[in-house]
Amino acid sequence: MNNWFKILLLSGLSFFTLGKAQEKVTIGEKQNVFSKVLNENREIWIHLPKTYNDKEINPAKYPVIYLLDGEINFEYYTGLSDFIARTPYADIPECIVVGIKNTERTRDLTPTKSQKKSPVNPEVTLFADSGGGENFVKFLQEELKPFINKNYRTQDYSILVGHSFGGLFAINTFLMHPDYFNAYVANDPSLWWDNEVSITRTKEYLEKNKKFPAHKMLYVSQADNEEKQKNWNSDMTQAIEKFKGIVEKNGSLNYKHTFFPGEVHGTVSYPGNYEALKFIFKGFRTDIKQLAKNPGLLEEDYKQFSKKMGTEFFPSESYLNIVLKFMKSNDFKEPETYFMNLKNKLYPKVK
Amino acid sequence: MNNWFKILLLSGLSFFTLGKAQEKVTIGEKQNVFSKVLNENREIWIHLPKTYNDKEINPAKYPVIYLLDGEINFEYYTGLSDFIARTPYADIPECIVVGIKNTERTRDLTPTKSQKKSPVNPEVTLFADSGGGENFVKFLQEELKPFINKNYRTQDYSILVGHSFGGLFAINTFLMHPDYFNAYVANDPSLWWDNEVSITRTKEYLEKNKKFPAHKMLYVSQADNEEKQKNWNSDMTQAIEKFKGIVEKNGSLNYKHTFFPGEVHGTVSYPGNYEALKFIFKGFRTDIKQLAKNPGLLEEDYKQFSKKMGTEFFPSESYLNIVLKFMKSNDFKEPETYFMNLKNKLYPKVK
Repeated sequence: MNNWFKILLLSGLSFFTLGKAQEKVTIGEKQNVFSKVLNENREIWIHLPKTYNDKEINPAKYPVIYLLDGEINFEYYTGLSDFIARTPYADIPECIVVGIKNTERTRDLTPTKSQKKSPVNPEVTLFADSGGGENFVKFLQEELKPFINKNYRTQDYSILVGHSFGGLFAINTFLMHPDYFNAYVANDPSLWWDNEVSITRTKEYLEKNKKFPAHKMLYVSQADNEEKQKNWNSDMTQAIEKFKGIVEKNGSLNYKHTFFPGEVHGTVSYPGNYEALKFIFKGFRTDIKQLAKNPGLLEEDYKQFSKKMGTEFFPSESYLNIVLKFMKSNDFKEPETYFMNLKNKLYPKVK
Repeated sequence: MNNWFKILLLSGLSFFTLGKAQEKVTIGEKQNVFSKVLNENREIWIHLPKTYNDKEINPAKYPVIYLLDGEINFEYYTGLSDFIARTPYADIPECIVVGIKNTERTRDLTPTKSQKKSPVNPEVTLFADSGGGENFVKFLQEELKPFINKNYRTQDYSILVGHSFGGLFAINTFLMHPDYFNAYVANDPSLWWDNEVSITRTKEYLEKNKKFPAHKMLYVSQADNEEKQKNWNSDMTQAIEKFKGIVEKNGSLNYKHTFFPGEVHGTVSYPGNYEALKFIFKGFRTDIKQLAKNPGLLEEDYKQFSKKMGTEFFPSESYLNIVLKFMKSNDFKEPETYFMNLKNKLYPKVK
């Protein structure tokens, strides 16, 4: 049904009545992938950025964000990653987001087997099914990442994002397999887990290696868990602060820690994930107005940025189109020619 | 195709190959509505909260958020409003979000006709097509709101959200028609517009009425526009600060103003909209653990909250179900009975 027909129909009948066959606003697709490692089917939600299917540009590749607790975080996270990747004020490159839906959350996200009495009712035993973290990371590395890399146009840059047990998992993945991802985000991580086993692992890592690996990044957000909840989460606060102390004292890691006074454990991921993306991609934003005065700045900025990231990044074709449009509409002829040449160099037209 | 068949197919052929007919992740539906006031068709994006179609509960009603610049803000905003409405840590009630897509943005969102030379190139004239704000608010009040109220289950509480020209529009709607919405959000509003005509209107409003109306709320976020952009946006900063001074000096309005040092004009809506929702619905969150000790607290909290909002709010049936589940799983028998009775009182089963 085309728009004109709808208009006629709606205005002819009644303005206040719903049209039929509404188009949906979609933000991703669900894939079912069977994991031999986990011996189960896993539901994966995949979000492709705005320009992914843009026929006006050459097929581009995108960094990939692996998002734990997909069913809780996918919707705002994909909105966030698209929103702050909007040209011309982009703070980050456009990214593919891969949300991983839980089956047995405690099993997958905890590094060791450990049980605990419920703080609400000591007769209830929690976490009987824990300790499958190593198996789950094997699934990510050996099955999920190859699946994503095969089926989507991915750039060789990936980020692992988790909250609570997911944050615990992100930090343990960083400690045990730092090469698996380029950056790690841990929102209010459950570092209290199993007598702070992750703190022990951090100390062991540094005793053995002295430094954290270069070009890796770790962002940790911390909620104000003390407020009103002393008996519940104070061990969480203590462990996070212990970890922060060790990492900051060592000083070799590109690390950022933010304490959010207004947030509790359940809400901190929202501002945390925003700050994390700004931290990881710091240096990405270029000022389109400055480029009018100094076109060479763009390539200089990208050289600097790539060096920091440990991976080569280039201005995207869609960004160059925006820059060209800006120069044209403001009648800045020399910069326009400069960026036209840059675009032709980076994205030669396929004959 | 059911999951089992997919599993067989995928494992039988190759793990790394995409399945077909992927289910989409959808966050809303698009409606085309014809406006007689504007004499054009308008595309509206509607997001319904998680429990809207939950068959396990009685059909509920929800506050409505009218979101300007829908095509830019709808995705992260609906993710946000769902995320912070999650039980049991909800900061806000679940809301319907109505995103309004632009046709002639400058025409619709500016209160007066005013032109300006481009600051980048003085030979270009900007905003020739301005001044249609009063017409656009008439569309919202007389056409869009009745359409939404007729076709969706809405509670009598609505919020208008805008950024830049949209923030200018929100503040002018508040000044000219304060009764149209319950709360107004203006992110980095363009109050510099037309020799600060909105500042003049604010002064006139207060000279005439002395006070702002009771139970209305206004949230303003302000970006750090000075940094690197002095020539572009300093009139924006000045006008916002002038407005803040007048409103705060008067002191009668439930008003919050946040300056975000890390944000620029294009990004401030993201943290601004989060803070705005927390401000508007402050007092909504209840502590499920406290309710185990003092079940009566819930109704007391809602009484207080309703008084502040100027509209009656009740605990939702889905929240009561979460409370009941919590009490049951922790074997808190007396509170469980209490909340079962409350649920039966508020949501009697239809015979």
